[in-house]
Amino acid sequence: MACAFLHRLVASVPTISTTIAGPAATTACNFGRGKNVRMFASAAGTVASAVTAQEALSKYEELAKNLREIDALEGISGLLGWDEQTMLPSGSAPARAFHKAALAGVLHEKKTNPSLDVLLPVLASPNVLELLPSPEARANVRLAHKEWELQKKKSKEMTAREAALEGRGYAAWVSAREKDEFHHGFLPVLQDIVALKKEVATATRPGWDTYDANLDLFEPGMTVRRLTEIFGALKTDLVPLLQQIMASSRYQTQDKDRPPAFQGGPQWDVNIQAQLSREVSEALGFDYTLGRIDTSVHPFTGGSHPTDVRITTRYSQEKWLEGISGTVHEVGHGLYEQGRNPEQRDLPASRALSMGGLSPEDFYRHVNRVQPDLIRVEADEVTYPLHIILRFELEQALLDGSLAPADLPHAWNAKMKSLLNVEVVKSGEGREGGREGGNAKGCLQDVHWAVGALGYFPSYTLGAMMAAQLWVSAERAIPSLSAEIGRGNFQKLREWLRREVHVRGSVFTSMDELLRTVTGEPLNPEYFVMYLKRKYGELYSMEEGGKEEL
Amino acid sequence: MACAFLHRLVASVPTISTTIAGPAATTACNFGRGKNVRMFASAAGTVASAVTAQEALSKYEELAKNLREIDALEGISGLLGWDEQTMLPSGSAPARAFHKAALAGVLHEKKTNPSLDVLLPVLASPNVLELLPSPEARANVRLAHKEWELQKKKSKEMTAREAALEGRGYAAWVSAREKDEFHHGFLPVLQDIVALKKEVATATRPGWDTYDANLDLFEPGMTVRRLTEIFGALKTDLVPLLQQIMASSRYQTQDKDRPPAFQGGPQWDVNIQAQLSREVSEALGFDYTLGRIDTSVHPFTGGSHPTDVRITTRYSQEKWLEGISGTVHEVGHGLYEQGRNPEQRDLPASRALSMGGLSPEDFYRHVNRVQPDLIRVEADEVTYPLHIILRFELEQALLDGSLAPADLPHAWNAKMKSLLNVEVVKSGEGREGGREGGNAKGCLQDVHWAVGALGYFPSYTLGAMMAAQLWVSAERAIPSLSAEIGRGNFQKLREWLRREVHVRGSVFTSMDELLRTVTGEPLNPEYFVMYLKRKYGELYSMEEGGKEEL
Repeated sequence: MACAFLHRLVASVPTISTTIAGPAATTACNFGRGKNVRMFASAAGTVASAVTAQEALSKYEELAKNLREIDALEGISGLLGWDEQTMLPSGSAPARAFHKAALAGVLHEKKTNPSLDVLLPVLASPNVLELLPSPEARANVRLAHKEWELQKKKSKEMTAREAALEGRGYAAWVSAREKDEFHHGFLPVLQDIVALKKEVATATRPGWDTYDANLDLFEPGMTVRRLTEIFGALKTDLVPLLQQIMASSRYQTQDKDRPPAFQGGPQWDVNIQAQLSREVSEALGFDYTLGRIDTSVHPFTGGSHPTDVRITTRYSQEKWLEGISGTVHEVGHGLYEQGRNPEQRDLPASRALSMGGLSPEDFYRHVNRVQPDLIRVEADEVTYPLHIILRFELEQALLDGSLAPADLPHAWNAKMKSLLNVEVVKSGEGREGGREGGNAKGCLQDVHWAVGALGYFPSYTLGAMMAAQLWVSAERAIPSLSAEIGRGNFQKLREWLRREVHVRGSVFTSMDELLRTVTGEPLNPEYFVMYLKRKYGELYSMEEGGKEEL
Repeated sequence: MACAFLHRLVASVPTISTTIAGPAATTACNFGRGKNVRMFASAAGTVASAVTAQEALSKYEELAKNLREIDALEGISGLLGWDEQTMLPSGSAPARAFHKAALAGVLHEKKTNPSLDVLLPVLASPNVLELLPSPEARANVRLAHKEWELQKKKSKEMTAREAALEGRGYAAWVSAREKDEFHHGFLPVLQDIVALKKEVATATRPGWDTYDANLDLFEPGMTVRRLTEIFGALKTDLVPLLQQIMASSRYQTQDKDRPPAFQGGPQWDVNIQAQLSREVSEALGFDYTLGRIDTSVHPFTGGSHPTDVRITTRYSQEKWLEGISGTVHEVGHGLYEQGRNPEQRDLPASRALSMGGLSPEDFYRHVNRVQPDLIRVEADEVTYPLHIILRFELEQALLDGSLAPADLPHAWNAKMKSLLNVEVVKSGEGREGGREGGNAKGCLQDVHWAVGALGYFPSYTLGAMMAAQLWVSAERAIPSLSAEIGRGNFQKLREWLRREVHVRGSVFTSMDELLRTVTGEPLNPEYFVMYLKRKYGELYSMEEGGKEEL
């Protein structure tokens, strides 16, 4: 039973995506890390005259000394971010915002310090670059050079303002969400954030589309144009799939009139959930001597990577799936970060886990029940991408000015209706078929925009797509993979991921380049769509012969 | 009962000292703060020519901008220290040491940045200083000038080395104490620490006695010479007092053959202890919207003061007194730090607290039982100062080279015998009258030397002395004070301390100057001795008429 449970749980809930697809997801979720910014390749200058290999190496070592100091300060910035969301006393937030701004200012100084003006143009010139001894060294120079070019276009003041606004935004969001109050508490900060993101994009990427400039911070090389194609195709497949599911006899006879998945489901003791999270994360290979797990309002992976990886989740007695799925999701980030470290070690065999009365089949059906609803992090795999597409379309509009921040609640609710056919109804309005929400369950539900992460949401669904594509390659490489996971053993998968994905870090310049190397082709959304069609076809008996043996 | 309990507990355990005496104690215990260094006044240079009041103010504002940035970075350093002792995964310590070193390097750069070379000599010249509008502004200039002079004598490399060694020392201490192993794990670090402290003292205070140079970091203006007088007088009073107590009929008939205070005492549930700590700290006025309480191996006050004050304690079921007394002690620091903030607010009345079967009189006698033993933090008020004197004498010898670090365990045990008549016996040796110890209960019991805090221990007993002296002034100012505390109400005392002590911060240059202003005389150890003689005379029925009504 334990094996089946682990198999079903991990192989089926939406959060599998990041357990498999590290890099996109990792870039996407590490608010706390402070170094999300990676740049796209552009032609390097040609400054150097004759430089010997010995001179190049000595310059590289001088650069590396600078980079190590910057990395240490970014590790500290990551810890501050983690602490802010897990430990900080409520009254201490304003001082923390000031501290973060001071550190961001120091980081800016370090990233633009005059010795880099001397080192980087020389090292990044193609003839010097090729003298360096390893692909990692060359990637370090390339990334440092791009970051340096970007930082030079920002003032220290702008950097500090960004950091302070992030802290202010987070505090305002926590309070606004709690009170379900958009206009007074949150709107002024959101306006400042949108304005600042435009200002930063104009300063750092003159001539770029504002949304592209923001997107590139989280997913190097991705553009609105390509995303619109990808998501357009996805919408074309998903909307009929969702309709088919909702028209299936199973949905009509069994799901339709049942209360939503989190109402009337089993109630789990929070302490037992925490223990389960710990056990599952250990079974998946998370190393607790180099990390920890805590709780926060919004689950995240923070800390100082890769040596101090701090994941969080949140528990509730009713929404018990959130705790474990948050853990599995964040463990995906955590494994990626810990995978950057060459250390390898064996992991304890997974232990039998009780499910409190549900049969594995019931449990599998329960966690995979398709149900259009309000909250992204509670969504099933079929409706989840529509939540992402909603955000993608709205954040584009915020940045190109066609949507004023003050109109966000209205636009959000309209899109919930058009994309998911979900009506957001305020408490007490009780409209037929509507879901009781308000902004706390609408545009205030997620933390991302509050901390300035516009252009971030697409990474979630890109991560799910990568996961589906990587899974096919992993199965090809390890024929016993499904059987191994059925026995609750994730070691072979983890080893494959470490070797093929995690250790490669940022040696590649884009997701497509990484995928081409690992799977033989750039991102292909078809794998994800095939996965959804097969799985939900079986679950809702919409195709012949597809009944999975349970 | 609750009132009596609170009264007895707080008015009698050793930890009262820091609840009353903030500054010495605060300087003494904030390892995590990262800005322990304060300097003694010395003649300021006379650089400035004619400077107008407007020019002086504008220069001061430029300085203040620098100081605020430095303070923010020190706040971050304080958070790193707190995290290291409460949250850090064990395998992450080496990376953390590197991060701390990087931040210490940045702080050194900021404290020696060229704009200070222009600003400080002008601002600190007496004719410019007097143009500044407030005593706080003048104190800021004075302190910044002294710190700048000190930092200029240190290299960035030396500063970073100090920070890294502190991290290494802490990790080595935790492990050595756990294994009770001095020579392999701990000795090499201790040797490095002693050597580095000498090196730093030589660089920063050429011509000073090494111990004086270290002592001055924790207690500005204090010297070995004065401490030797103070502690000599104390020893002269304490040794006979201890002998009298041990010869009293109460001790002979009731205490002598009972097991040590922590054996056979009531066993307290750790969760209930934590709740008690929370309630007592709130009753004492600790503000949890600007602070928090956690557990650590060695209790401390860290975080980013005054807006984010993090106290810790430690709980054990047997040594239940440690948890609450650790809390009360650290709350003393916490109140001092929070008192730096002008914010005032009313606090909830204290709630009835059950003591689990002991009568107030039994409890009072129990926590005040005199018993020479191995562990400083478990010691009663009479033997506690002898633990301090022991450390004072040994750290002097380590710094003047007359004691090699390798000989520390032997010297420690010899002094335990001569000062406290306690024989340290290794497990299984079972010598008559000896206490089972080993180094874990000997020279490895405290964290201080492991993190480089040599010259720190005297502050504890100086704090107790200040407390006794301040108490007399407070009683004079508030005739109802004892009665108020008897009712569990600490508000008047806290207000008096805020007004007379906490808000004054470092406007004065030494403890003596502060005490002279508040109590009318410099530190006078007689108050402490009088307090001990009266209290323990009553407890052990050694004087006439002294029986306190209980």
